[in-house]
Amino acid sequence: MRMIKPMADLYEQLRRLPGIGSKTAMRLAYHIIDRPESEVRQLAGALLAAKQQIKLCSVCYNLSDSEICEICGRRDRDSSIICVVEQPQDLMAMERSHGYKGVYHVLHGVLSPLDGIGPDNIRIKELLLRLQQTQVKEIIIATNSDIEGEATAVYLAQLLKPLGVTVSRIAHGLPVGGDLEYADEMTLARALENRRNM
Amino acid sequence: MRMIKPMADLYEQLRRLPGIGSKTAMRLAYHIIDRPESEVRQLAGALLAAKQQIKLCSVCYNLSDSEICEICGRRDRDSSIICVVEQPQDLMAMERSHGYKGVYHVLHGVLSPLDGIGPDNIRIKELLLRLQQTQVKEIIIATNSDIEGEATAVYLAQLLKPLGVTVSRIAHGLPVGGDLEYADEMTLARALENRRNM
Repeated sequence: MRMIKPMADLYEQLRRLPGIGSKTAMRLAYHIIDRPESEVRQLAGALLAAKQQIKLCSVCYNLSDSEICEICGRRDRDSSIICVVEQPQDLMAMERSHGYKGVYHVLHGVLSPLDGIGPDNIRIKELLLRLQQTQVKEIIIATNSDIEGEATAVYLAQLLKPLGVTVSRIAHGLPVGGDLEYADEMTLARALENRRNM
Repeated sequence: MRMIKPMADLYEQLRRLPGIGSKTAMRLAYHIIDRPESEVRQLAGALLAAKQQIKLCSVCYNLSDSEICEICGRRDRDSSIICVVEQPQDLMAMERSHGYKGVYHVLHGVLSPLDGIGPDNIRIKELLLRLQQTQVKEIIIATNSDIEGEATAVYLAQLLKPLGVTVSRIAHGLPVGGDLEYADEMTLARALENRRNM
């Protein structure tokens, strides 16, 4: 017996979501046709509303439901320090640490020549424009420490330093509370390299 | 920084799906606002279409997009043998074995007094009605072998036997290709109990 069409369509759609394998997609599809229509309508509505109402902040390109995002709109944030992150998720992670009082710039990607993503495909131009328009003292580059993230960090540093702005990179080393014994070699090498005098 | 409302709504909706934890819901939400609107529209549409177009077969209560499901509508299926399953998923699993040529009856649940599910809450009445309307030789009870499934099987057997129909239960034992060494005790006990002469 083949799957009936509306079921097969739903399964196909769910299957495309990241991290949803065929068994999960199937379970979700059966769950959905089991729920009252009002509930399914709410889910479908939330999907469309999120897509339609969420835009990017015109200053930092963070996700926002208004022209300027909550962070850029706040008076207690220091707009002379900009932390550059790859994605909105990274910004949220930084905010959760409650340790940062500057503002952000979301690149929406990293340089990845193999995937055809060059400087024009991520929001680097917009960062340069921002530097022209506002007084910026320091730029903290918080891209990930994988190959693409590092390459992007180096590229940005070379681009920004000549403009007379301090460019820094967030520290990499052992996670706080982490066991030396279980640290991977790369992290350990980085932690040694970046050791500080006490 | 709190999550913006459309994002929080979407996250809440995704979070309610079975097997979707907070991290997965977050990842899915970010994925969705990253996709083109046409794609999100397709997903939302598939959700609603599945809910609205899928109904239950008027004979066996399998999922169907027409009055009578594909299996009940086929001439090469023996309608005098009915296999009783808990859910449409179980029917699909049986079909995948390609070993069964009878028809089905989907209960849409099992007896579970603790959850307040009695004989009137699952499609038992409909099965009895079916027996009155068509000539049935055998009923194979293929509910799961957990407590509720077993209880439902026993209940059905007591109900159906007086009607002069053969009632059987699918076999439980060692899975084919399974190692005796790794079989759980319950399965092993069942396999011994149900041993056959060679």
